[in-house]
Order: sequence, then C-alpha cells, then structure tokens
Amino acid sequence: MRVDLNSDMGEGFGPWNMGDDASLLDIVTSANIACGFHAGDPDVMARTMRLASENGVGIGAHPGFADLQGFGRRRLHLSAEELGNMVAYQLGAARGIARSMGTNVRHLKLHGALANMASENPDIARACYSAALRVDPELILVVLSATPMQAVAEDLGARWAGEIFADRAYNDDATLLDRSRPGAVLHDATEAGQRMEAMIRAGAIITASGKQIPCRIDTICVHGDSADAVAMAGAVRNHLTGAGIAVRRFD
Amino acid sequence: MRVDLNSDMGEGFGPWNMGDDASLLDIVTSANIACGFHAGDPDVMARTMRLASENGVGIGAHPGFADLQGFGRRRLHLSAEELGNMVAYQLGAARGIARSMGTNVRHLKLHGALANMASENPDIARACYSAALRVDPELILVVLSATPMQAVAEDLGARWAGEIFADRAYNDDATLLDRSRPGAVLHDATEAGQRMEAMIRAGAIITASGKQIPCRIDTICVHGDSADAVAMAGAVRNHLTGAGIAVRRFD
Amino acid sequence: MRVDLNSDMGEGFGPWNMGDDASLLDIVTSANIACGFHAGDPDVMARTMRLASENGVGIGAHPGFADLQGFGRRRLHLSAEELGNMVAYQLGAARGIARSMGTNVRHLKLHGALANMASENPDIARACYSAALRVDPELILVVLSATPMQAVAEDLGARWAGEIFADRAYNDDATLLDRSRPGAVLHDATEAGQRMEAMIRAGAIITASGKQIPCRIDTICVHGDSADAVAMAGAVRNHLTGAGIAVRRFD
Amino acid sequence: MRVDLNSDMGEGFGPWNMGDDASLLDIVTSANIACGFHAGDPDVMARTMRLASENGVGIGAHPGFADLQGFGRRRLHLSAEELGNMVAYQLGAARGIARSMGTNVRHLKLHGALANMASENPDIARACYSAALRVDPELILVVLSATPMQAVAEDLGARWAGEIFADRAYNDDATLLDRSRPGAVLHDATEAGQRMEAMIRAGAIITASGKQIPCRIDTICVHGDSADAVAMAGAVRNHLTGAGIAVRRFD
Repeated sequence: MRVDLNSDMGEGFGPWNMGDDASLLDIVTSANIACGFHAGDPDVMARTMRLASENGVGIGAHPGFADLQGFGRRRLHLSAEELGNMVAYQLGAARGIARSMGTNVRHLKLHGALANMASENPDIARACYSAALRVDPELILVVLSATPMQAVAEDLGARWAGEIFADRAYNDDATLLDRSRPGAVLHDATEAGQRMEAMIRAGAIITASGKQIPCRIDTICVHGDSADAVAMAGAVRNHLTGAGIAVRRFD
Repeated sequence: MRVDLNSDMGEGFGPWNMGDDASLLDIVTSANIACGFHAGDPDVMARTMRLASENGVGIGAHPGFADLQGFGRRRLHLSAEELGNMVAYQLGAARGIARSMGTNVRHLKLHGALANMASENPDIARACYSAALRVDPELILVVLSATPMQAVAEDLGARWAGEIFADRAYNDDATLLDRSRPGAVLHDATEAGQRMEAMIRAGAIITASGKQIPCRIDTICVHGDSADAVAMAGAVRNHLTGAGIAVRRFD
Repeated sequence: MRVDLNSDMGEGFGPWNMGDDASLLDIVTSANIACGFHAGDPDVMARTMRLASENGVGIGAHPGFADLQGFGRRRLHLSAEELGNMVAYQLGAARGIARSMGTNVRHLKLHGALANMASENPDIARACYSAALRVDPELILVVLSATPMQAVAEDLGARWAGEIFADRAYNDDATLLDRSRPGAVLHDATEAGQRMEAMIRAGAIITASGKQIPCRIDTICVHGDSADAVAMAGAVRNHLTGAGIAVRRFD
Repeated sequence: MRVDLNSDMGEGFGPWNMGDDASLLDIVTSANIACGFHAGDPDVMARTMRLASENGVGIGAHPGFADLQGFGRRRLHLSAEELGNMVAYQLGAARGIARSMGTNVRHLKLHGALANMASENPDIARACYSAALRVDPELILVVLSATPMQAVAEDLGARWAGEIFADRAYNDDATLLDRSRPGAVLHDATEAGQRMEAMIRAGAIITASGKQIPCRIDTICVHGDSADAVAMAGAVRNHLTGAGIAVRRFD
C-alpha cells in the first residue's frame, strides 16, 4: 500500500512569502506550484521548482484565476475558450520555468475558485483539462476523487491521480462539508492520520455519516500555510509510514 | 536572393486593440507575438497565433518587461537571474498557447526597452538568450545584425536570424540613429524598399554616412501599428519581390 | 425643459486608446471617467479631466471592478466592506487627479458589472454609495431611473441624477431589454432622438410595450466607443435642441 | 525636547501580510501607509488607517512606483508629468479611504526607489511634491533632513517634517552610507537609541566620521518588518522617553 502527499507551494509574490515551503518539501512528494496569476512570480516559481527538484518532489502546475488580491479564491465567469487559454498560458509558463531549471512539470492541479467550479461543473473541468492536455498529452491531472473532475479526466483518456483531503470531512456525495459546519475541518493531527489510513485501507472516501464511496486514492492533500499545518502534514506522514503505508510519488 | 519580413503583433490587451494584424499577416512571414507582460493576454495570444498559423506565418515569442502601462518601453534594472526567469516564463507561456492551438513557437525576439538594453549590453542579452535556449535549444533568436545580440547568440551556439529595420537610418557602428535626429525614421515607402534592396544586394547594413557593415540579413522588421505602417510594409514587400528578392520565412 | 447628456470616457490605458473623447466632449455635458481599475491610468485620467474641464463638461468618477482584461464587465462577488473600500479608493484617486488639475469630481456613476449588480441588488448599491458619500457628502450619484439604485440614493439622502439610455429598449419594470432580444439596441439616430424627446416630454420611461413609468430624467447616457456612436450622440443632441429641450449640465 | 517616530505600514496585499502593524502602532506616532501601487490594497489600507486612527497615530500617504513584484524598489524613469499624476492618484486614493474611515491624511512620505530618486534629484522631488500640494496645500511633506527633498519642500512653501533614520549611518553630505558598507546598518537597539538622543540634543545629523550637519529633526524613521525591528523601535522609544525627550506627533 502506498500514497502520495501533495501540497500547494510557491504561493509568495514579490516581497511576500506564504507558508514554509522548505519544511513542507521534506514531507510531501508532490508540489502544486502557483503560476503567477493568483500567486507566484517567475522568481518565486523558479526558486520553488529548484527546491522541489532537489528534494525529489514531483512538480505540478497550479493555475488559478488572474486575481492576485483575491488569491484566486473569487469566482470569475469565463467562457470555455477563455478558461482553456488561461490554463494553457499558465501551464506553459510553468513548463518554461521548469525547463530553464532543468526539470519538468509532471502534473496539474487547479487552484481555488477555479478548482471549486471545475469540481461542480464538468464543462469547466473539460475546458481546463482539454487545453492542458493539448499542451502536454502526458500530463497527470490531479482530480478530486469521485467528482466530475475525475469523470472528465477519464473521458479525455488522460492520466490522472485521485486526491482526498487530510483535514476535511466529506458529504455523502463525495463533496467536502462546508467549512462553516461543525467538524468540517480537522485540527487534530492524530485523527487526520487515522482517517487517512482508514480511507486508504478501505479504498474509499469515508463520509461524515460513515458511508463509504469506493474510489482510487492516489494522493492526499496537506497544507503548509502555517506552522500548525506543517506539523499536521508531518504527523499524517508519520502515521501512514508507521502503519505500513509507503509515502511515494504517484508517478 | 531571399529575405523574411517580421512584425510585432498581438499587442492588444483585454478590450483594447493595437494595429491591423489581419492585414499584416498577408504581408509578413514572421510574427513576434506579445506574451502578456507588456501587451497581449492569453486570449489575444491565442487568436493571433491561430491567425498566424492559418496564414503560414512563423510564430515568435516577443517577451518584454512586466509593465502594461509603459508598454515595456521603460527600462527596468533586473538581475541576470530575474531576466532569465522573466524570459523563460513568457516564452513558456507562448509555447503553451501555441501548443494548445496546434502550432509551435519557432523564434524569439526581445521587445522594447528589454531589446534596447540587450543590444547594448551583452550580459543582458546572455541572461535572456541562455534562459530561452534552456527552454528550447532549437529556438531561433532574432537579433539586431552586427550588434552584441548577434555576438551572444553566436557564442551560445544558437540558431539565429539577423534583422535590419525597413524604416530606420543607421549609425556607423550598426546602431540605429536616434529617433530625434533628422532622417532617423523613413516615411517614404519607395525609399524604404530601395534601401532594403540595396542592403540585401550588398550583404551589408548601409549607414547614413554611406558606410557598409557586412552582415547576415535574414529578416526585415516592418511595423503595423497604423494604416500608413501597413501600407509601407506592403510597399516594401512589393518592391523586394519586384526586384527579384523572394520574401520567405527564415526557417 | 432641459436634460444632461453623459458618456463614459477616459477608457484608454497606457498605449491603448478607446473611443473619441475629444469629439464626445463637444456633445456631452457630463463625463464619467474611468478610475484605473477597469480602464484609465493616472495619465489618461489627468488628460481626460483637463479636456473635460476645458470644455465645461462636468467630471464624474466611474469606478469599476479591478479587472483590466475583462474591462470591469465580469461580475466579482465581494463583501459590502470590500465594495465600499474599492469605491472609496477609486473615487479618492479621481478626486486627487482632479484637484491636481485644478478641477473637481462632481458626480459618480458605477461601471459595467458593478453597475449591473448595483441596479439589481440594493445592498450592493448601498455599499458603494454609502462609501462614496463618506468620501464626499455633496457628490451627485448618477442612478438608473426607477431602479433600486435610485431608491438607495434617496434613502441615503444623497443628491442624485436619474439616467436613461438613448439607445436601449426598456422592459415594463424599468430594466433594460436584454441585448440578445430583437430591438434591444437602437442603431437609428433619428429614432433615438425622437424616443428621448418623447420620454422627456412624458416625464417617464416609455417601455417597449408602450407602458409609461413616471420618473425623473436628469441625464441621457450616450456612447462614444465608435465613429457611429459619436454620430448618434451628436444626432440625439441636435434632435433635442431642435425640439426645444436645452442640453445642460445637471448641476 | 520632543520628536515623532514614523514607520512604514500597511504593506500587505491581498492574502499577504508584512510586518506587525498592530505592535508598531503602540510605538510610533506617525504611519506611512502604502497606497496600492507597490503594496497595500483598498482593504489593507482601510484596516491600517482604522487601526492607526484608533491609536491616535498620524496617517500619511506613502506612494511608490506601480511595481508590486519589485515592491517599488526598482527605479522607473518617468516624466515630471507622469510622476505628478502617479502621486496625485495615490494620495487621492489614500484620502478617499481615510475619509471613508472618518479620518484624514496628514502627511506624505515617498517610498523606496521613488524616495531615493527624489532625495538625489530635486526635479523629481518637485514633480512629486508640487502635485501632492495641488491635491492638499496643507499636507505635511516628510523629507530627508538636509537633502534636496527638504530644499524643494521649503522652496514650495510647504509644511514639512525633517526625518532621520534610527538604524542607518550617514555620509558627510547627509546621505545614507551604502548598505553594503560595514556599519551602514545598526542592529544594536541601545546604540540606535543613544545615537538618536545625541542627534536630537545636537540639533544635527552626526555622520559616521563625527561631523555634525545642523538640521531640523522632527521625526525618526523606525522599521517594523520583523520581530527584531519592532523590538528595536520599542527600545529607541524607551531610550528617548527615559532621556527626557517626549515622543509626540509632529503636528
């Protein structure tokens, strides 16, 4: 049994830093690197990719809406063509920086509001993913397991990795419990580790009500935007390896 | 005898247009397409690349400083590392859009203040070009003939195309006469066509004083930012073909 | 009988121009000037305000969403606090430029998607208008006549001017007929002039069905983004003055 | 004897924070608040101004070049007119936010590369200051004591406050020792406090060589971008008050 751990990274911009990427890179096996639209500038991207590469961590493009102030968390209503161009541009830029650093972009994970919209609306997922695959047919799409994102990735014949969240509770339709609901966000690292182990052993998302939704679990999303988050990510990793589940890149 | 005609293109942004790209694409054989930093957004880039591709015109990335208000014409003093990342990002983005449109980026030409700085300072040319070649070793660098840009391209072992300007007078060191000087900018299409023919036949830049600077002339830069500019570009093309000089892509 | 004519202006940015402001300033009596978020940079704003001031045209701030690529036409979902700060910033910036040019900002009109949202949702109108009035309690709010915008302006005790459109057909609830519907947009200048005259004489919006919605009509919105638009604006003005309706600033 | 303490503040943007403004506001008496071009968005500005106002700290506009990635630390070469518009826009925006928060902008201090350029070149200082004074003739200009900035402020008949730095060594012409030189930046809070006391008692800048340059010292610049910086700012304040020098707003 094995699983990958992924985290968002390279979310600084100019003089501003976010999160402790250096610590996270000792814990995770995949890095989703912001592409300059919601965070990340060319220098931040280059530094983060070099660090990731030196740590043997798989590099992913993490495109989002062009909204620095809103950090890509505000919904923008774009046409399918605009979405495709926006993703192709950011993925291309990430590939450019990666090549100039002697490495490569292996996966793509959508960010923030764009990811939320794509997980709800297969047309949006399709617009983004089909453009990304035209840029690189070998790209691995990181999708929320058991959502329309996964269905679209499969329909496009793409390589994909199914993702679950370490610190979030699930509804019975595989969507995430709204953050405003009690218990929606886990703060206890032990509980998170145990839950991840249980889901991997079950080969299923286990919802808040106890229901099992069988699905492929290739990667677990952990966070790194605070010291607590990094500590939880490390604890989840330790729990998994202690339970005999290897933490390894999904490729 | 043959030569390529190149022009800057895709210099709109969002609701704003610049120049008559559709008309120019009937005249030129190479298009330098803005990459989103000084002009051009993903949608403008995609539209322009599709048009260029449909017209059989060679597609180039045209990176510039991240200064939309200043249109990349203001000098910014960046480190070699920052310059390299900035070029790798923009070239990568252009490649991403090109691939998503089923075409590819064949050449790179620096824009505005970045080009001026690189033509004066070989360290700046090297920072930009070496990053671009790490992204794509097969890329053709469009350089100002007989300047440090050409020397750096040669030193890097790159494919390159030497460029002269249709509408500008030259100093005896192969730099352009300052725009403020009388005769620095040609407005007469017939004169421009004759001068281009003379330089190509001579295999040399012919300066304002009449001096000849032998150099490779692969491509002629024409402009398209006004109706007059497009008319002059067309007249130069007609003069050359009438004089038995084929107008063809440099690749 | 009298009415004001207003038009959006100063919608260039950096190297890009939009519309023929110089011609429009001979026709209209109020100018809504973009504030740098969806269009307009400090230099464009300064030039436009100076021209407006020289022509005796009333100067207004025209704030919009911070979305240059989308020209402020894409809806963004912000909190009331964020909307207020966004409007206060742009109105303040416009007042700063105006004062530095020796003139002043007299009115405010919301732009694009922000205006659409405020005309539908009184909470959004209130967030924007109350912030604007904290910046300047004497400010005149240009509102769509007979919509929630007007109701909020009245409720806030603000000075306001009611606006109708020269080139748009109306639904029976005083909203504009959707642009996709036949007859939604008028292209005939004579018809537009006659319709404006009829509404002013009636003191009411006359809808597509012929219904009259009594309301204050202080200003008519005309456009200037094309030669045709400027011609129509001039024709509407000529029709009104020919019919004995004075075209004068609303203050 | 009395002096003001000022610090840059509100230098976050969107999701990014910089410095510990809340702690600094217990120490300083004047806050220079970024205006959205090099840092600061409307929401950050509003929050920072409200906090400053609640703490009785004087509010200043802190305009810089429109370069978020470079944090306004890269030199841009603009015309006098462009500089004036840029300053009028930012000062106006700051005044707009201040008024909407029920407070007001009392002073202006230039930021980063713009400040460096204005301290070297009186034409640049004049372009910025004269535009600012057209926006608000009562504005207090914070200038580097004994530099061209001060001379221009005096020449314009403006209210001004002369500033020295707590943590920097001075050359004999009142400019700051280059940061790369040994001893250019003080890291010892006790030494900084003693030096400030000595300069205030002397009514002069005391340079690294021991020379005294008599000048008005109205305010001392302290930093808040790290925990160490905040500690040093607090120590300087404690030293001054312990030495009988009142720390009070300069207005």
